[in-house]
Amino acid sequence: MTTHAIGAHAADQPLVALDIPRRTPGPRDVQIEIAYCGVCHSDLHTVRGEWSGTLYPCVPGHEIVGHVSAVGGDVSGFKVGDTVGVGCMVGSCRQCASCREGLEQYCSSGMVGTYNSPTTDAPGHTLGGYSQRIVVDRDFVLHVRHPQAQLAAVAPLLCAGITTYSPLRHWGAGPGKKVGIVGIGGLGHMGVKLAHALGAQVVAFTTSESKREAAHALGADAVVNSRDLAQMRAHAGSFDFILDTVAAPHVLDAYTALLKRDGTLCLVGAPASPHPSPSVMGLVFGRKAIAGSLIGGIAETQEMLDFCAHHRITADIEMIDAHAIDAAYERMLKGDVKYRFVIDCAMLGG
Amino acid sequence: MTTHAIGAHAADQPLVALDIPRRTPGPRDVQIEIAYCGVCHSDLHTVRGEWSGTLYPCVPGHEIVGHVSAVGGDVSGFKVGDTVGVGCMVGSCRQCASCREGLEQYCSSGMVGTYNSPTTDAPGHTLGGYSQRIVVDRDFVLHVRHPQAQLAAVAPLLCAGITTYSPLRHWGAGPGKKVGIVGIGGLGHMGVKLAHALGAQVVAFTTSESKREAAHALGADAVVNSRDLAQMRAHAGSFDFILDTVAAPHVLDAYTALLKRDGTLCLVGAPASPHPSPSVMGLVFGRKAIAGSLIGGIAETQEMLDFCAHHRITADIEMIDAHAIDAAYERMLKGDVKYRFVIDCAMLGG
Repeated sequence: MTTHAIGAHAADQPLVALDIPRRTPGPRDVQIEIAYCGVCHSDLHTVRGEWSGTLYPCVPGHEIVGHVSAVGGDVSGFKVGDTVGVGCMVGSCRQCASCREGLEQYCSSGMVGTYNSPTTDAPGHTLGGYSQRIVVDRDFVLHVRHPQAQLAAVAPLLCAGITTYSPLRHWGAGPGKKVGIVGIGGLGHMGVKLAHALGAQVVAFTTSESKREAAHALGADAVVNSRDLAQMRAHAGSFDFILDTVAAPHVLDAYTALLKRDGTLCLVGAPASPHPSPSVMGLVFGRKAIAGSLIGGIAETQEMLDFCAHHRITADIEMIDAHAIDAAYERMLKGDVKYRFVIDCAMLGG
Repeated sequence: MTTHAIGAHAADQPLVALDIPRRTPGPRDVQIEIAYCGVCHSDLHTVRGEWSGTLYPCVPGHEIVGHVSAVGGDVSGFKVGDTVGVGCMVGSCRQCASCREGLEQYCSSGMVGTYNSPTTDAPGHTLGGYSQRIVVDRDFVLHVRHPQAQLAAVAPLLCAGITTYSPLRHWGAGPGKKVGIVGIGGLGHMGVKLAHALGAQVVAFTTSESKREAAHALGADAVVNSRDLAQMRAHAGSFDFILDTVAAPHVLDAYTALLKRDGTLCLVGAPASPHPSPSVMGLVFGRKAIAGSLIGGIAETQEMLDFCAHHRITADIEMIDAHAIDAAYERMLKGDVKYRFVIDCAMLGG
């Protein structure tokens, strides 16, 4: 069984139309006709070989929504026609402490990524959501309960949504808490929406004065231009939690200084070169922490999707032509996207 | 009222005998005849002007033990003859959230340090424990319940002890937890003793193969030469908490790699130049954190002293002649101390 897809044969080649294999659904499998797939920075880094270890052909995409077209005999939670999602993972060991606790993203054997992870299926590594169909183990498929009209805008919740929701929940963002969101992009715009919906007081940090109104519209109670020292100082020592979504290297001390005692600055962006080394004294005086967080577990991803359906939260998206994905990547690199590109996978070849 | 002391008139001058003023005890004051004072790296940094802002004359010393010689009319918790201690703080605002929670070290107005902090007393800044007498507000005096014969070895508990005890308690070191202590010096040797007494499985990290036996004797279940990659890798992903006492710049990624998911690397050493910038991915994969911690609050310092008295824990010390303090500093800089120098303050001048 093959399906139409968009992918690259090598790091220095553009993405092109491909036909890729998909396995026949096994007893525990869910076969999904992909409706939409969000475009994540990780897609670009991987397909262009900017992180080591890309396997080719590479078909990116891990913000997948679609409809079930077949289920295996051991699948009871999904039926043909269901609206479903698949995020960054399609497998894990199921045995280690993290898997048993529903934190499959921290699987001690390494989670199986939706693309570029080893698999026994042809061609030997997983192929992602820039495609018309995917077959996924039932345990890594999520129910989508949003209205169908919102489906394209649900796709980015599967990575950008859960990547921000999980740390916001883990560090207790909610009523009575002051939460900062650094960077108003694909991740950050979701962080603002989610932190606001969770009931926190939300301050958005941006270097782009032009994003001020937009950040308020997303749900920010206040917006700080992080290049303005006076604006920054006005918030010194006042945050319970700051979620930093910016991948470009920047001075973390500027944000640890804004934390209360026992506050945490959580990084979810992966910088290509290191941030300037953070001040140890900036942590010692206030028992502060700098932490990291990786997407979220399957159960928490379902919780996030249901939370978003209840609160009518989706991503702000721009639909793009899958065959012009390289041009979209270039716009993404310039920050020219509000705030997530989404591919209409039904339009893929065929 | 004056008292004999040892201090410096300028950053580039040796420590010499001085007579310094002490205030007449007010209603809330406890007057203490100092028996012993421990020698902390902070003393050296401050008196030599290596941190900005040293006020001269500078009399260091914040690991103070002695006996009460007078109390003010409003003091009910202490009486003449009591054995007491004074640590790094002699005051704080008492009003802010941290003070109200017994975390005076994080006072939002800044704690009043035992030396080199502004005060209304002459000469306008606090003067520390390298002296024969000190007058301290009752709220910053601790009860010492160890036998008198151990008194000199109790002194370092007031800084080195609480600096390691507080983070060990805050991050839950105890039975069933695997705890690392990085560096076997003044702080680290206390960290090993305390983590062991708290019931944790303790691994000591040192670059000095010569400290292996000593670390076991202090209470370490295992000792790892941190320069040996194979030894380090054998502990990958296994620690609940690592307390890093090393002030010299070093690669923190070597330790974040040893943490379990949700583990914390806590820094209590103040490097003169930054550590290499830690890997963000090293934090993201495992939701790990790098944190800092500053001494401990007054209530927790009393808890630590009582815990140590109960478990017969003191510091390993070497008594030195106060008039040879500069020579002791040079030995300290070379790591030639097992593990804390203590001054016999009764021998000071007079």
